[in-house]
Amino acid sequence: MAGLVVRNVARADRAVVDAFAELGVATVHEAQGRTGALASSITPIYRGAHVAGSAVTVSVPPADNWMVHVAVEECRDGDVLVVAPTAPSDAGYFGELLATALQARGVRGLVIDAGCRDVAELERMRFPVWSKCVSPVGTVKETLGDVNVRVACAGQSVEPGDVVVADDDGVVVVPRKRAAEVLAACRAREEKEARSRARYAAGELSLDVHGMRAELERKGLRYVDEGPR
Amino acid sequence: MAGLVVRNVARADRAVVDAFAELGVATVHEAQGRTGALASSITPIYRGAHVAGSAVTVSVPPADNWMVHVAVEECRDGDVLVVAPTAPSDAGYFGELLATALQARGVRGLVIDAGCRDVAELERMRFPVWSKCVSPVGTVKETLGDVNVRVACAGQSVEPGDVVVADDDGVVVVPRKRAAEVLAACRAREEKEARSRARYAAGELSLDVHGMRAELERKGLRYVDEGPR
Amino acid sequence: MAGLVVRNVARADRAVVDAFAELGVATVHEAQGRTGALASSITPIYRGAHVAGSAVTVSVPPADNWMVHVAVEECRDGDVLVVAPTAPSDAGYFGELLATALQARGVRGLVIDAGCRDVAELERMRFPVWSKCVSPVGTVKETLGDVNVRVACAGQSVEPGDVVVADDDGVVVVPRKRAAEVLAACRAREEKEARSRARYAAGELSLDVHGMRAELERKGLRYVDEGPR
Amino acid sequence: MAGLVVRNVARADRAVVDAFAELGVATVHEAQGRTGALASSITPIYRGAHVAGSAVTVSVPPADNWMVHVAVEECRDGDVLVVAPTAPSDAGYFGELLATALQARGVRGLVIDAGCRDVAELERMRFPVWSKCVSPVGTVKETLGDVNVRVACAGQSVEPGDVVVADDDGVVVVPRKRAAEVLAACRAREEKEARSRARYAAGELSLDVHGMRAELERKGLRYVDEGPR
Amino acid sequence: MAGLVVRNVARADRAVVDAFAELGVATVHEAQGRTGALASSITPIYRGAHVAGSAVTVSVPPADNWMVHVAVEECRDGDVLVVAPTAPSDAGYFGELLATALQARGVRGLVIDAGCRDVAELERMRFPVWSKCVSPVGTVKETLGDVNVRVACAGQSVEPGDVVVADDDGVVVVPRKRAAEVLAACRAREEKEARSRARYAAGELSLDVHGMRAELERKGLRYVDEGPR
Amino acid sequence: MAGLVVRNVARADRAVVDAFAELGVATVHEAQGRTGALASSITPIYRGAHVAGSAVTVSVPPADNWMVHVAVEECRDGDVLVVAPTAPSDAGYFGELLATALQARGVRGLVIDAGCRDVAELERMRFPVWSKCVSPVGTVKETLGDVNVRVACAGQSVEPGDVVVADDDGVVVVPRKRAAEVLAACRAREEKEARSRARYAAGELSLDVHGMRAELERKGLRYVDEGPR
Repeated sequence: MAGLVVRNVARADRAVVDAFAELGVATVHEAQGRTGALASSITPIYRGAHVAGSAVTVSVPPADNWMVHVAVEECRDGDVLVVAPTAPSDAGYFGELLATALQARGVRGLVIDAGCRDVAELERMRFPVWSKCVSPVGTVKETLGDVNVRVACAGQSVEPGDVVVADDDGVVVVPRKRAAEVLAACRAREEKEARSRARYAAGELSLDVHGMRAELERKGLRYVDEGPR
Repeated sequence: MAGLVVRNVARADRAVVDAFAELGVATVHEAQGRTGALASSITPIYRGAHVAGSAVTVSVPPADNWMVHVAVEECRDGDVLVVAPTAPSDAGYFGELLATALQARGVRGLVIDAGCRDVAELERMRFPVWSKCVSPVGTVKETLGDVNVRVACAGQSVEPGDVVVADDDGVVVVPRKRAAEVLAACRAREEKEARSRARYAAGELSLDVHGMRAELERKGLRYVDEGPR
Repeated sequence: MAGLVVRNVARADRAVVDAFAELGVATVHEAQGRTGALASSITPIYRGAHVAGSAVTVSVPPADNWMVHVAVEECRDGDVLVVAPTAPSDAGYFGELLATALQARGVRGLVIDAGCRDVAELERMRFPVWSKCVSPVGTVKETLGDVNVRVACAGQSVEPGDVVVADDDGVVVVPRKRAAEVLAACRAREEKEARSRARYAAGELSLDVHGMRAELERKGLRYVDEGPR
Repeated sequence: MAGLVVRNVARADRAVVDAFAELGVATVHEAQGRTGALASSITPIYRGAHVAGSAVTVSVPPADNWMVHVAVEECRDGDVLVVAPTAPSDAGYFGELLATALQARGVRGLVIDAGCRDVAELERMRFPVWSKCVSPVGTVKETLGDVNVRVACAGQSVEPGDVVVADDDGVVVVPRKRAAEVLAACRAREEKEARSRARYAAGELSLDVHGMRAELERKGLRYVDEGPR
Repeated sequence: MAGLVVRNVARADRAVVDAFAELGVATVHEAQGRTGALASSITPIYRGAHVAGSAVTVSVPPADNWMVHVAVEECRDGDVLVVAPTAPSDAGYFGELLATALQARGVRGLVIDAGCRDVAELERMRFPVWSKCVSPVGTVKETLGDVNVRVACAGQSVEPGDVVVADDDGVVVVPRKRAAEVLAACRAREEKEARSRARYAAGELSLDVHGMRAELERKGLRYVDEGPR
Repeated sequence: MAGLVVRNVARADRAVVDAFAELGVATVHEAQGRTGALASSITPIYRGAHVAGSAVTVSVPPADNWMVHVAVEECRDGDVLVVAPTAPSDAGYFGELLATALQARGVRGLVIDAGCRDVAELERMRFPVWSKCVSPVGTVKETLGDVNVRVACAGQSVEPGDVVVADDDGVVVVPRKRAAEVLAACRAREEKEARSRARYAAGELSLDVHGMRAELERKGLRYVDEGPR
């Protein structure tokens, strides 16, 4: 009963989306209440990329990338493609040809809970991919899936139009309707962290900066000096 | 921003839910277009259980089972509890005490993308659990999560009120609104399989029963006799 | 360039094949020089089965079981089907319908470096399967593979006609041409082990039964009594 | 610099050790402050065994079981053998011959962060093993290790003479000197759990039994009724 | 019964072998019918290497690298060493000393379904390795294996003399006798891909370039515009 | 019963500790009898770091990093922090804020059998981390653990004050009291390896340099020339 392509899905406000590209994935994850991070099995194929974009989602059968081709047409400038197989697969669904097509449309990157290939060429093109593995194994084009439906990708539900932020730490998803609110929370958090960082660099302890000692003692923390060993 | 409990979520029609308990998970997965199966990492703690129920979903922090306690109150007769951590965990979130509480409310089983414990006692109680692992490691009760929100559990999105079917093969989720339609498709599939089974048992080949030979030949299948080795 | 079915491959002498069903997989592995064991990721779907048979091999694409249907026709009484995907897959390639077809031809079991399903029914039928996982996830029938070519299955090369022995410990493969020689080595090993077992049961130590103490001392083994802790 | 066998290590009081065999692994883990549990990768080779004993520890090279033979001599009635490789291995270090030797000395079971084999025979003998995997792959006898030194086994440090408790949930280690104190804590916990169990079975909620509602509210838990979906 | 070294195995034509070094692993995998790729668990220890060579195969016991030393003598200029343990191992079989010896003989790289070490030095030497892991753990030299026999390496059968191609995407094996034919197929594929790439870069869609729309529609693909969310 | 901080633990002699920073992890592992290496799952977050230091150990609950904050105060110039969860966790316990605090105290790096985050910033700061994974997922600060007690970290027991050496190959632990002796053994090994390296580079075979041929022949190694294939 697959075979559905939903067109013209709502995206978050572009200025909001773009602002997330300045924010670390860990910060976004914290700022929205420690949620939305994809599993740590999803890693960047090269270091140094940092993108934010609107999710175009693709539900694909294992080892079949036909729907990724279908999805290209639904992508717009500023999007990030999010691909999730209906059952686990480590095939190489994606390579530099598809990246060429996506880059021509202004797509900012790919997140896939499966494999990708042509990683040397993708790095040269600066088309970033966050994937479960690198695999030269190709796929077939035989079976339908869906585009722009809700998918479960690496442990998180992703809706089309959600904001996807990805950097060297991994990937986090922000629900479209909460994007502005989360953005504000991120900025507040960054300011607070800047203050902590300065104090830590000066040698202060987080135990003191954040006043943790009383609570630690209340929970029973005790200090002893080492006896003879 | 976690900490939400949604009450009185809609369930599918009870007769429809109950009818799924007669259907194998593999059949349901096929009948709804080869979708909805949780990852094969989710296995039953004992063999022979087969349940269908309405999902009460729980989003929990890693290694913290407080929200499972909260969720008990939201469960009704005929439900199945579905627990998904916001980040991977193999702690033992669930044991025979919680099972006692759930069984007292008519809950039919637990699906959890994390660990459970007390498996010997759970088998004696006939309270079935499908989990990622068995682990004696306990959890804390410190941090909020959510009850009856959409969760991503072992590779599938699950909405509260979806129909969950589980047997020795694993777990499949049927969207609540499609439950009746999928049930009908399952029954049609079972009838078709019964006819195939009888012919296979009599020695007929699926190549002939399903008329595959022409298409195989068209794709290039060729037969040779073994030469000397 | 797949799509080859090799017919009428040579099998080992039937009496030799059958004799292996009395021998443990661990014994066979040792007797042929500690080789031939499939990876420990391959486990039986139920305990207590113990079979030996001639390998009919199947090379399948990921998540596509079409060639298993093709392979059924090539199976004879006394065979064991060995299925290896060309790239990793945990889809459920095999269930009770195919088992019905194989059982009708006298096939003794299945070894598959992928998933199988319908495990409750397979156990009821007493059709044993050794697989990488149990998964309800079905497969497509779109792409050719090969039957009775050499495959790499769970870490071992398997030729069609090789002897496959499987029990609760796992699976071992014996090259067809060495089958008689390995059988003899197994029997010699079993006699030796019976003698050791009797002496161990009587309280003798393997250090003495096998005269290990001198070599251990030569390599530097030293004994101390525990001091105060 | 391996090659050390420490003899006559201190064990905990036998009555204390034996009393642990009545206590679930999960209970012991909780009672000693949620510590001591081996990783969930360590599972019993058959269900229903439940033992407690004093650890005889063995540090072995990968794929070499020579030191297990050496360790047999150091075992006494009431011991449990704990085997940890110096580097990961899934070879089958242990089978029914060694079990015969250990059973003749009154050893109660084996815990090994590697593979074991002959599992059908081990179950018939009722010699329980908790292992990382089942593997027919044998080992060599070439390289020394140590007996009764501290080992890191599946995520826990184990000292010779520590109390090892194992059941269907896994394995927990209790430091020898804390054994009596932990035993008392276990019993107190069991009494408390019995009271909870009775109330849960009568339909009371843990939220009420343990007075969790106020703290949940304080942390911000909020309840809403489902709107239209 | 191990202990066999086969000398002077046939290699593919040197010009053909060398030509593969210009071809991506993914291309070769596709061009030979989507076969021959090693599992994605095999990754390069550093990025940017790209080699093709003739396989010298080594079957080694777990955690024992003696036969790698034996194999050095069998290597010639233009070879790639392929090492497969008879049972899984993540020990560090290989480091810069062996690389020095191989480099002195003109060997182009190592493929090993186990661990390697000294990776910083190996990168400085520009001796590329594709391995399952990096591990400082050393091996022993006690037990025989085989050189230049067929091995199963990371999911593929490899014969001595087969062509091995490796780059950042992984490793693919081409049967020696098919090398020239596969080379031609690769070149044809590359030309076709160059044409696609140019059209994609110009903004054309693969749906149109490859005429997929009709078949997608025939299989039931349907487009809808998003309703209100 | 957690909640203990041991202060002022003994470190090894500083000159000895510092000298280890010149030695490869693989060399240290070999020189102390092929022991002490952490599992290969522990990898550096960036290449090129090489440190030696005295272990400050931290035992943490899963997904809770409170005790890392406590541990900062116990760190001195020249230390390496070693963090081990009491149960498996891949949460991101550690990021650039804690690194700032540690760097201000002269700490040389972190070894953690769990996740870390902010890896781009950590690399810019040149604060090296060896971790099980990179994960943006944050932790809570709710539950006590211990500082400077013995921990089991990635397969090795680590005592506070042990010497930790880490480079691109991984991590090795040297017991504090054996540090000087192991250092001497390392230097002897390095000299021996330098001699081997020179001979290998000149084309000599290890079979000859180390006189292995006789022992190989005694064990049964045999050479054959390839027949026709």
